[in-house]
Amino acid sequence: MTAAAVAAQVGGRLIGDPDVAVRGVAPLDRAAAYELSFFSDQRYAGWFAESHAGVVLVSPAFEHAPGLPSTRIVVEKPIDALVGLLSRFHRTEPRAVGVHATAVVSATATIGADVTIDPYAVIGEGVTIGPRSWIGAGAKVGAGSVLGSDVRLHANAVVYPFTELGDRVMLHAGAQVGREGFGFVPRPTGVVRIPHVGRCVLEQDVEVGANSCVDRGSIDDTIIGAGTKIDNLVQIGHNVRIGRFCFFASQVGIAGSSRIGDGVQMGGQSGMANHFSIGAGASIGARAGVISDVPEKETWSGFPARPHKEQMRSQAALVRLARLLRPLERLLARDAEASVSTVSQGPDVSATGSSS
Amino acid sequence: MTAAAVAAQVGGRLIGDPDVAVRGVAPLDRAAAYELSFFSDQRYAGWFAESHAGVVLVSPAFEHAPGLPSTRIVVEKPIDALVGLLSRFHRTEPRAVGVHATAVVSATATIGADVTIDPYAVIGEGVTIGPRSWIGAGAKVGAGSVLGSDVRLHANAVVYPFTELGDRVMLHAGAQVGREGFGFVPRPTGVVRIPHVGRCVLEQDVEVGANSCVDRGSIDDTIIGAGTKIDNLVQIGHNVRIGRFCFFASQVGIAGSSRIGDGVQMGGQSGMANHFSIGAGASIGARAGVISDVPEKETWSGFPARPHKEQMRSQAALVRLARLLRPLERLLARDAEASVSTVSQGPDVSATGSSS
Amino acid sequence: MTAAAVAAQVGGRLIGDPDVAVRGVAPLDRAAAYELSFFSDQRYAGWFAESHAGVVLVSPAFEHAPGLPSTRIVVEKPIDALVGLLSRFHRTEPRAVGVHATAVVSATATIGADVTIDPYAVIGEGVTIGPRSWIGAGAKVGAGSVLGSDVRLHANAVVYPFTELGDRVMLHAGAQVGREGFGFVPRPTGVVRIPHVGRCVLEQDVEVGANSCVDRGSIDDTIIGAGTKIDNLVQIGHNVRIGRFCFFASQVGIAGSSRIGDGVQMGGQSGMANHFSIGAGASIGARAGVISDVPEKETWSGFPARPHKEQMRSQAALVRLARLLRPLERLLARDAEASVSTVSQGPDVSATGSSS
Repeated sequence: MTAAAVAAQVGGRLIGDPDVAVRGVAPLDRAAAYELSFFSDQRYAGWFAESHAGVVLVSPAFEHAPGLPSTRIVVEKPIDALVGLLSRFHRTEPRAVGVHATAVVSATATIGADVTIDPYAVIGEGVTIGPRSWIGAGAKVGAGSVLGSDVRLHANAVVYPFTELGDRVMLHAGAQVGREGFGFVPRPTGVVRIPHVGRCVLEQDVEVGANSCVDRGSIDDTIIGAGTKIDNLVQIGHNVRIGRFCFFASQVGIAGSSRIGDGVQMGGQSGMANHFSIGAGASIGARAGVISDVPEKETWSGFPARPHKEQMRSQAALVRLARLLRPLERLLARDAEASVSTVSQGPDVSATGSSS
Repeated sequence: MTAAAVAAQVGGRLIGDPDVAVRGVAPLDRAAAYELSFFSDQRYAGWFAESHAGVVLVSPAFEHAPGLPSTRIVVEKPIDALVGLLSRFHRTEPRAVGVHATAVVSATATIGADVTIDPYAVIGEGVTIGPRSWIGAGAKVGAGSVLGSDVRLHANAVVYPFTELGDRVMLHAGAQVGREGFGFVPRPTGVVRIPHVGRCVLEQDVEVGANSCVDRGSIDDTIIGAGTKIDNLVQIGHNVRIGRFCFFASQVGIAGSSRIGDGVQMGGQSGMANHFSIGAGASIGARAGVISDVPEKETWSGFPARPHKEQMRSQAALVRLARLLRPLERLLARDAEASVSTVSQGPDVSATGSSS
Repeated sequence: MTAAAVAAQVGGRLIGDPDVAVRGVAPLDRAAAYELSFFSDQRYAGWFAESHAGVVLVSPAFEHAPGLPSTRIVVEKPIDALVGLLSRFHRTEPRAVGVHATAVVSATATIGADVTIDPYAVIGEGVTIGPRSWIGAGAKVGAGSVLGSDVRLHANAVVYPFTELGDRVMLHAGAQVGREGFGFVPRPTGVVRIPHVGRCVLEQDVEVGANSCVDRGSIDDTIIGAGTKIDNLVQIGHNVRIGRFCFFASQVGIAGSSRIGDGVQMGGQSGMANHFSIGAGASIGARAGVISDVPEKETWSGFPARPHKEQMRSQAALVRLARLLRPLERLLARDAEASVSTVSQGPDVSATGSSS
């Protein structure tokens, strides 16, 4: 794109050469003359000064910032503007047509039209895969699983048997979906796995991050609602019900039998203990540990999790209290001495009201 | 199974049609007429009222609960009853016989009788696999590893070289067992990996969850004791010794050189720092962080972890203290003023004992 | 090696038979007569007493410790001495030569000299792999990725398209590198993935642990500096810049747009929120949660993370405060009573200065 075209696309004011052409995006410190960059944070003024980017989207405050880039486009929010352009610069991964000769596809599997199956994928008995789906190299789809249309499995993703993935579901590399969950019953000889007969259902447009795990239910289903996006290294236990359009950041852990409503956001490394619920629209802070029900639309944080404002007040109070430790210890000590001396001085002192 | 057969099996009292047949299990809100469900929690009264389940196991309290299901079986504990039935309804994954044509098996490997090796598994030099084991699609068994009988590797599990898995060990999809641990020595040019010569041994009946990792030892062995069950996304560092019949929930992290006794339970997202020990039968709460030795049979929680009752008392005390912040600040302020006015009033006031 | 050779190698003093030969290393409780062990911690005196190790490296304090091992080598630091010997006892994994017949290698890929590609690896279009690299079984290298020389990918590692790995980079089994990160924009119909056009660059000598994940940048690059070592189950979000020679223990989580300097150490299960920075040489404790910038060379811990000494003081103060809860509650109660009685006693008492 030329600088002029970029400016027109983002509705920005062009300064410099309208014909400079860019064919990629890169950060200021690594950009070359054929790349577009952005500058909106004072902390990167040094990078900007030395940048070789051909064109830079800048905030109004930085219109005249000192720096090598002579061709600049002034916009209110450079990052938002850049995000709107990304699809123009995005190199998509090449996609083959059809079923690779090395893919092992069961004779009883039903593969839809225009499905791509990459090398070394293994499709089990009775599996159904909907049209236009793309099964990545080394991905495994277990017997009896049903995949909708436009499903994307990245390399080495594993779908265990009897799992259901809705239309446009995406599993990233190493995601493991539909495993029988962590349930055991004690027996005289040790423990035995509880047979898991619940389903594992990911509704349409769900995304599961790299190396994340979703277990199927034992006596209930594990369901992830439409449009929910799950980041990397997340654990969803058995019998869990998650609503639609939720966002789970990385390394979240949801224990079995949890109930999470629509539109819930869970921050990185947060967790939830068995058998609780989070109401629709609630927001759980990073590292929070939910061990009681969270009402709709509230923001909770901390461990044990509680309303965020309460958590902040309590933490602030404890910081101030920690500083009062010595004055309080001295006060208690004097008070103890006063009790002693009051007693020894006889009854007429007690009327002063200072102690005991 | 007919409703009558189910009632007989669980020792429950049948209400309704004894000939209703069920061939699967499903939760109340998703069950169809040919499915069995359960109702034991008032929170699901709404689901029960509208359920299409053919037969429902109900608690005595819900025998006459309003709802579509007319065929009910009354039992004290519906969930326990259902768990006892699950094997009757469990669809097992189909298992092929023998070594798939696409499996790569080293000429020097020794494969026992009745072993199933699925497509694209790779079995390295000198590997031994015991009878009736089942190596899943894409699983990798590194050179020199020894697997016992009835071992089950799910798809894409990786056993690094020189690892030992006992009889009936199960590795879930994406489990990585036997990697050389995270050990480095500084050198003038940077750091160099410490060669790891310790073993990685999983005793019989051990289960490792999806995407969990167990590192081999550097100068010691990493050993997981018989019957221990490990959930998903767990990390076991090098040189760790874990006892028998332990349960590790998901996302637990055990640092190197830890020593854990028999029968220890570790809650989700808990962790343990290097070189400490947990005594047999101890229980570590979710999110706990163990940074000192835990005695046998005790229950510890929190970070730093300490006895659970202490942790609870201390947390409760801090909550109450946080509320006393302002009264205490006022008290200290008045006390400070009193000191000032006491001093200015001269020596004979000091005998009242109220300050300084 | 003979005992005499070991003693010479480590500069230790030999007691016992110089001709005892050892060909491996094992811990005291599992060592056989042909194995070398070490004893430097009193807690293992029991193991030492019964050990069948042929030769044992002992601390000076244990030179005459009671025990079966008769051949001992006295050194100041037995563990350090042993680590220096490990390469002599390390069984390396056998390595095949060339490209396995089952590897799928794109016709447009460029494979360097002496590269090993194991069974079922898949190398995409336009990939470049430098000399002497070793691509493990089932590993996947996406289109357009560039790998340097002596790169090692363990089994089932996945390199997404357009990723760059420098010389001697090592990815452990199940590592997923270069995924498009967790970025979405809201749309009327739901959310849409932000196309990620930033790179994912691992500089030379970087190591990524088993099942760890590194996301490529959206509008910036994700870069991991030379020599940095990352343990298992770690998450590195998009647009993150990590310096050289850092160490990240297992289960660390780094949110997007973080900036981490050279030589930073992050303890197990620690985390970092978006958009903050950690200065060079800083050290972050296990479980710490960084939600503000950390200056160079400092040691921080806790959540929210702060300077370690402050954190320790504050925690100690809170423990002491928790014990003062009741005395303080009593003090406040008496103070409240005193206020009441002071008021009722009239103005001349106020001069004593004890209350209100």
